Formats: sequence, C-alpha cells, structure tokens
Amino acid sequence: MKKIGILGGGQLGKMLCLAAANWDLEIYVLENDENCPAAPYCTKLVIGDIKNKQDVIKFGQLVDVITIEIEHVNTEGLIELMYQGKTVHPNPHSLNKIKDKGNQKAFFEAHNIPTSKVFYCKNKAELEQTIFYPSVWKSRLGGYDGKGVSILKTTSDFEKLPDEPCILEEMVEIDEEIAIIVARNESGEVVAYPAVEMIFNAQTNMLDYQICPANMSVELEKEAKALAGKVIESFDICGLLAVEMFITKSSDLLINEVAPRPHNSGHHTIEATETSQFEQHLRGILNLPLGSTKMRLPSVLLNLVGEEGFEGLAKVEGWENALNTEGVHIHLYGKKTTKPNRKMGHATILNKNITDALENAAFIKQYFKIKSHAK
Amino acid sequence: MKKIGILGGGQLGKMLCLAAANWDLEIYVLENDENCPAAPYCTKLVIGDIKNKQDVIKFGQLVDVITIEIEHVNTEGLIELMYQGKTVHPNPHSLNKIKDKGNQKAFFEAHNIPTSKVFYCKNKAELEQTIFYPSVWKSRLGGYDGKGVSILKTTSDFEKLPDEPCILEEMVEIDEEIAIIVARNESGEVVAYPAVEMIFNAQTNMLDYQICPANMSVELEKEAKALAGKVIESFDICGLLAVEMFITKSSDLLINEVAPRPHNSGHHTIEATETSQFEQHLRGILNLPLGSTKMRLPSVLLNLVGEEGFEGLAKVEGWENALNTEGVHIHLYGKKTTKPNRKMGHATILNKNITDALENAAFIKQYFKIKSHAK
Repeated sequence: MKKIGILGGGQLGKMLCLAAANWDLEIYVLENDENCPAAPYCTKLVIGDIKNKQDVIKFGQLVDVITIEIEHVNTEGLIELMYQGKTVHPNPHSLNKIKDKGNQKAFFEAHNIPTSKVFYCKNKAELEQTIFYPSVWKSRLGGYDGKGVSILKTTSDFEKLPDEPCILEEMVEIDEEIAIIVARNESGEVVAYPAVEMIFNAQTNMLDYQICPANMSVELEKEAKALAGKVIESFDICGLLAVEMFITKSSDLLINEVAPRPHNSGHHTIEATETSQFEQHLRGILNLPLGSTKMRLPSVLLNLVGEEGFEGLAKVEGWENALNTEGVHIHLYGKKTTKPNRKMGHATILNKNITDALENAAFIKQYFKIKSHAK
Repeated sequence: MKKIGILGGGQLGKMLCLAAANWDLEIYVLENDENCPAAPYCTKLVIGDIKNKQDVIKFGQLVDVITIEIEHVNTEGLIELMYQGKTVHPNPHSLNKIKDKGNQKAFFEAHNIPTSKVFYCKNKAELEQTIFYPSVWKSRLGGYDGKGVSILKTTSDFEKLPDEPCILEEMVEIDEEIAIIVARNESGEVVAYPAVEMIFNAQTNMLDYQICPANMSVELEKEAKALAGKVIESFDICGLLAVEMFITKSSDLLINEVAPRPHNSGHHTIEATETSQFEQHLRGILNLPLGSTKMRLPSVLLNLVGEEGFEGLAKVEGWENALNTEGVHIHLYGKKTTKPNRKMGHATILNKNITDALENAAFIKQYFKIKSHAK
C-alpha cells in the first residue's frame, strides 16, 4: 500500500494514524511539535513547519500520497508536489480557495451553491463603510474552532475587531445548524454520512453537543446530502469534505462553510457508523472503494474541553463516572497542557434513545473534567 | 492514570495499545523483536526476553501495572514484582497453573469445573502405558494456536509425538465448540461477553470462522456465562479470561481450556460489541468500572493467515474486494514476513443476517490473500 503523509499532527492526525494502524499503513506526519497528539502513533514524525513551502516539498518527497488535517498549510508547496507527480488530496487549488473564507464564499456564489449574502472587505476602513447589525464577521485567513468569527450586534462589537481582510455576512434566521460529511474518491464515487445537528455554546462559540441523527425531515436530509455532494464535486476534492449548513426558518439550506478533511462533526462515526470518517478519508485519498455510512446507533458527541480557571499540565477527573455510564466512549487526544476551552478530547455517547443519550452526555459534561495539576 | 507494562508485543499487544491510545494511556511493551506488531503504537518498547526472570523484573520497575498478551512468560519474575508491591494482572500464581496444561486441568478437577477426563504423563514411556484411541494429546507447556495439540486416532499418530510431559484427554463427542470471554476487576465486578461459536480447520487445527452469537439456546448460554464467571473467580483473575468450552452431544458444558488475556475469539468485539475486549482488559487491570458487553450486530470473524506456498516479505492481495464488501473490517497486524497459516490479521464481517455475513466471509477468504513478494 502507498505511504501517506499528513500535514499536521493534532488530534485529527492522531485519529487518522489509529485508523491506518488497522490496515498497517505507513503514515508520516509533518509537525513542528514533537509532543503533538499524532507523534506516538505515526510511522515517522518529521519536524517542520506546515506553513513553510520548502518544508512541505521536502516532506512530500518521503511519501506517495499527501493529505492534511488542517487547512492552514502551504498550498504552493502542495501544488509543486502535484506537478512533481505526487498524489495530493484534497486538491490544493481548491484547498487554496477554502482556506480563505472570502474565496470560499466567492466560490459558492460562482457555483450557485446557496449561502448567506456576503460583503468582502480588504480592511477595517472598508468594513466601516459596509457595517450593519446584526451581522457575522469572519477573518479571511485566521478562522479555526470559533476563533476569527464574531457576531456583531452593536458598534462596540465592531470596535473590538482587528484591522484585517474579512467578510461580513448577513445574519441568517437559523432554525438549526447541521453538518454533513461527504467523501469522494478518484473513481468519482461519492457517499454522504447522516446529518448531525450542532449545538454551539453561546459564550465560547465552540461546539457543545452534536446529535446524530439531526432533527430534520427525511426529504430535507436527502436534499442536504445532495447539496453536500454537489459541493465536493464542484471543488473536485477526494477524501472528506465536511459541509456545515444552516437550515433557515423557511426550511432552506444555506452552506455556512466547508473543511476538506476529517472534522469534529464526524468524531461520532468511530463508534456510531459502519465506517469511521478517518478510515473513509484513507479510502478516499487512496482511491479505494468507499465504505458504508450507515448509522449503527444514534449518538451525542460532547467535546471535552479544558475547564475554565485551569491552565498547565492536564489532569483528568471523573473516569469512574464516565466509564460507569452506558454507551460512553472517551477519547483523549494526548495534549500535555490544558487551557480554558482547549479541545482536549471528546466523548461519544451511544443510545437507541437520543433523550437518554443527551441525559448521559449532560452527566459526563458535569463530572468528567479536564483540569490541571497544582502549579 | 497508571503506566501499564505488557509482556509481549504481538497482535494482542498492538490492539491493547490501540485501545489505550483512545484514553492517552502510557503503555510499555517488553519484547525481543524490535519490529513486533506493537512496536509502532506503544509508548516505549523495551527489548528483552519475556521468559527471562531478570528481564521481567527490570521491566516491571518502569511501570505501575503489569499484564501479559501471551501466557508463556516468566511467572517467577511476575511473583517477585507482586511482592515488590506492583499490580500484576492476571494473578501470576494462577497464570502459573494456566500455562501448564496439566496444572490447568488439575485445577478444573480440584474446583469441580466440568472438563473432559484426563490422564497425566511425565514422558512418552508413561504415555505409552496410558494410550487409547481416539484421544487428544496436549503438550503440558508448548501449546499455542493449534501447536502442541494432536488428535490421536492410530498408533502412527502416537509414534509422531515428541517425548515430553503431556496430558491425554478423552475425546469428547462434541456438538459445538464455543468461547466465552469474561472480565473481572479488583472490586469483584464480573461481566461476560456473548458466546461465540468456533469453527476450526480440520487440517491446520486453526480457527477458520468464529460466529457471534453462537447457535445455542438462551438458557445454555446463560449457564455457560455463569460457568465462565465461576472459572475467573476460582482463578482470582482480574482483566480478561477467555474460556473455551465444548457443548457435548448431550448438551453438557465442558471447559476445554482458558487464556487469561485478550483472545482471538474476542476480536469481533472491536466492532461488534459496545466495549472491545481490549478496552475491557484495560478496565479490568486498572480496576475501572467494566464496560457493557452488549452485542451491536451479529458477526463472523475470519483469521487472515499466510497463504500456503508463500513465505517471506508479506504482500496483500484483494483490498478492493474486501473493502467493497458490506460490513467488512480488515485488521492487519503488521507482521513483516508471512509463512503458511501464520496469523497475519483478521476480518470481522458484520451483518444483521448471519447467513449473509457468512457468505461475505467466504468471499473475503477466497479473494483476500496474504502472499509474499517474489524471492
């Protein structure tokens, strides 16, 4: 089997390595932190900067197929590797568009992919000309995990913003926020996972719970899957594409944003569906037949984030409670240090009955804590 | 969480490491082969001999809890570690009995655990005095994976046997052969997995298919689980105990043999039950609450063994066929070299309908092959 190289060694890289371990695949990881989550489980960790063109090109020489676990990588290096004959997934030209939220949005508009109305601003001065309330501000290049996104309600929100290229989106009247992960391979096969419903924490803007199946009609989910399929085909991407969508009050689907890699909204697939998103990504980039996306059991996913008020060497509390709760699967990423709201792991809670799963998730949230050792 | 040390770095060690990876546990492995299956996934590989007392004791100093993935380890070293205050699971005194098939059998007899009638022989001369046909010969110390076991039908079978301590068992009229994996922790919790039905290859004496659930009545399965529970309690073992049993023509249960560790008959639990046997073993030895053993879906397990006529650097054939088949989960252990009938991996085939699962398993058996590169 071909050697795979991943740019980035965070939790997504680690879980790709664990999926690859079942098939005895060789996985090289490029990352500048030798203690990164993927380090203990990859075949070889190469220390280097995923944003540096030369580091990316040099790394690519070691493997046959190059992929990513984070968008913010040097795409010029990836394009160069593609011209050298290496297999690069996702397609680096599309990755280039996706990593700039302005270009991503422009791509949707150009391809008649439904999305909220948007204004493009080069800097804060231009933004000041455009500003309206309420609205959603997004940095063009810096966004990840709720950073680089602000809900603007008053001028004081505007004043806090940095001076940088950005987009301003109309605030959509949202009924529900969902994500659909689709996968594609070079043979053109496309499969879609069941929709998940995302529930965000209003304060941190980070994911609180994620529920699968989403609370939506079969018809609308079918429509959403077809739309996600259209998006991955438009971008000509192999491997995974996570497609975040809004369901408006009038039951229209609007694409919020996409990520061409394994995604937080797919972590439940490890236990809850027939093929995990990580194995599916490997199938996609290796041009192997795609796996079944059938749901085994309904699930609730809970991100395990660093507890407020704790910073430093991580210490877990509540193992007994977690492991005593039915259907709970704990995943800790192996990040040595914690800080408030840092993603340290996740818990997937399976249950035939989604109400029971939610109750168990609330219990885990209350009693399973990532704190720090006393300083 | 405590540091765990495993004696042995084969496939069972590898799969323990992968289960531990979800919880970010530190796993040290003692093994004399630096290319063993567990090597890429353990926290630290310590090169040494699991049969050497000093190596075992030295290794034990590095960790808090010591366990095994194979019985044939130095138990004196483990007993010494226990006296030093280390946590050792399984209980090394019981391990000592189990690794000698004569003592194991004597233990069953002493504890009124039903088993086939047995004769103990110090050497081949003693065996000659006892011999009868048909019977089952077992080496007292050397047996593993069908080695060290012979079915004796004629004097020519007897003549081929080595001169060593052995037991001779009455040939039981078997209706079915099953295995039940039980788990226990220091708090005394005991759980049992659903019974699996084992189908052996008549030529190689190795497992061909393993089916879960086993074809047996609910009442008999309940009885079998209670019996397995009695066995793990009698041995005072924490972690897993795989209990192989015969169902006789008269529907009686007889214990064949036991293994105090993760077991081939539990590999399907990775996908087919709520808690995998590997996670369960970790829970057991760390005295954490035991996990649910509920079956998610029926399964067939197929060992992927080295193809007859091929020896050397392993090469896999048939990926496309395997990954195109519904419900198939491939596990390759990462052994670099193959030889006929060497266990190179396994496939778990899930299906609501066991007949469909068996059909898919037969397809995989036919088209997924472990051969070798041309010499």
